[in-house]
Amino acid sequence: MDKLAVVALGGNALLRGDEKGTIEQQEKNAADTLENLIFLLKDGYNLVITHGNGPQVGNILMRNDAGEAMYNIAQMPLNVCVADSQGGIGYMIDRMLRNVLNKHGIEKNIITMMTMVEVNENDDAFSNPTKRVGKIYTKEEAEKLENEKGWQFKSSPKKDGGYRRVVPSPVPYNVFNKDIIEKLAREGNIVVAVGGGGVPVYHDQNNDVRTVDAVIDKDLASAVLGTAINADELYILTDVPFIYKDFGTPEQEKLEFLDRADTLKHLEKGTFAEGSMAPKIRACLKFVEGGGQKSVITEATKLEDKSYGSKITMNYED
Amino acid sequence: MDKLAVVALGGNALLRGDEKGTIEQQEKNAADTLENLIFLLKDGYNLVITHGNGPQVGNILMRNDAGEAMYNIAQMPLNVCVADSQGGIGYMIDRMLRNVLNKHGIEKNIITMMTMVEVNENDDAFSNPTKRVGKIYTKEEAEKLENEKGWQFKSSPKKDGGYRRVVPSPVPYNVFNKDIIEKLAREGNIVVAVGGGGVPVYHDQNNDVRTVDAVIDKDLASAVLGTAINADELYILTDVPFIYKDFGTPEQEKLEFLDRADTLKHLEKGTFAEGSMAPKIRACLKFVEGGGQKSVITEATKLEDKSYGSKITMNYED
Repeated sequence: MDKLAVVALGGNALLRGDEKGTIEQQEKNAADTLENLIFLLKDGYNLVITHGNGPQVGNILMRNDAGEAMYNIAQMPLNVCVADSQGGIGYMIDRMLRNVLNKHGIEKNIITMMTMVEVNENDDAFSNPTKRVGKIYTKEEAEKLENEKGWQFKSSPKKDGGYRRVVPSPVPYNVFNKDIIEKLAREGNIVVAVGGGGVPVYHDQNNDVRTVDAVIDKDLASAVLGTAINADELYILTDVPFIYKDFGTPEQEKLEFLDRADTLKHLEKGTFAEGSMAPKIRACLKFVEGGGQKSVITEATKLEDKSYGSKITMNYED
Repeated sequence: MDKLAVVALGGNALLRGDEKGTIEQQEKNAADTLENLIFLLKDGYNLVITHGNGPQVGNILMRNDAGEAMYNIAQMPLNVCVADSQGGIGYMIDRMLRNVLNKHGIEKNIITMMTMVEVNENDDAFSNPTKRVGKIYTKEEAEKLENEKGWQFKSSPKKDGGYRRVVPSPVPYNVFNKDIIEKLAREGNIVVAVGGGGVPVYHDQNNDVRTVDAVIDKDLASAVLGTAINADELYILTDVPFIYKDFGTPEQEKLEFLDRADTLKHLEKGTFAEGSMAPKIRACLKFVEGGGQKSVITEATKLEDKSYGSKITMNYED
């Protein structure tokens, strides 16, 4: 049986922080990133692609705000904005990947599915929003919006990185339609799913599906999906080729192989930055703890060379 | 084998022209409409649900406009806005339908797919935009936006109905992933597809998938999908229980059964309003000409009683 991999693309695989995010920029970024998935396809992997939506859903939220202010159009809540972003980003990935496959003479169906992901309605995250979405603001702008809209802001983990809006990010534990996603992917179709971490939902006491206003971490959602569909490998593609200890300091040290015990030790010591690398590493750990063979964190462009990237496994000998 | 039906919901199944379109209103409208699909499910139909996006994509376009004006966020082109609307509307239909099924104790998967639909890049529609999207404006507002943004407007077919923005609406002729949609639906899953008529695309000379800024008529797209997946019946749900001759005049006459010859005669004579009933009837005709058994135009609430609704077939004896 072909290996099944979940590949998680950052929201910035399309919309980069240093660009305005025009459609031309987003399409070029998507095509450049997706080009690298050819290496996995040529190795015979079946693929499920997931993606973030941090920059995009932040923009959609702000467009909703501006649309009401300028044109009196009812604002949609965050859960609908997440669903919107699944449509728009999923479509861009889907269409650009079709063209990458066409260039390489690979024939595969691509299926982009709107995906809901279950969370606990009483998750602690609802009283402690941590997920950064949307634009970077100055302190003054952030304070103004905090007063005007009741939005919550946190300063960037980077020095002089400004302020960004934060929303709750509850822990995902189940993916709707997981069996269908697995079946379609194992039949050789490329499935795009849990976009933006999935639209967060829960079942109420009547078993009705209710929603909450939150953004699920796309890496955690990808790990939950990977476990649910019995994927062999999880790839989290980001903007560094490896995980580092003491990243950005003179003592920076590449961590190429990590087993569960080491990973836990590093997480406990706070080796990795919260809000950037730490949640990715927790997602990697969750995936291998759930039965996945290995998790890999690297840059998309490094997929060509399997010696690149940091690998997290349960035990070194795996 | 169970019968397969395509059921097309108007964009106004969620967002009605006489409401602001808050999330509470949209969810209630969706649930009320979807409740009626139970009659088809209890009759043993497999279902593919399609939906319009006229009001929604108009709102998304305006939010994009406002977002750039207020926050300098890059505007997304219409094709991405259509994809956004597939995500948001598809999600609302999907979630509300899960709750309707739950209420009735019916267990079925619901799969909402982002769908691209092929058009001809040289379609006449690109030089003659006719599809109404978004808000209703006064003449003065429309003229202002026409000057400021280069948008095109047409007056409403209804008396004193104001002005709405118009965009090209090219003819659809193929639906991406049609085989997968058919397979999933025939396996008993409910598939939500070609939302908003689908994201319009075409293949260029290199066989790359390119896009155009347009909104495909959701009824025509539903007919093309119906033919492509060998559906038996097409239901176009709208806000009248029947088709009428001379609608809204003292001579108004209900048309309950129409064969191909009669339908063509009526279309030629201009019996049906362009921009409202005429395109629905053309879609119905296209579906039966493509091999479909019958097309039905009615209100959602009338699905309970099969004697309701106007039926279009190739020949009366069908």
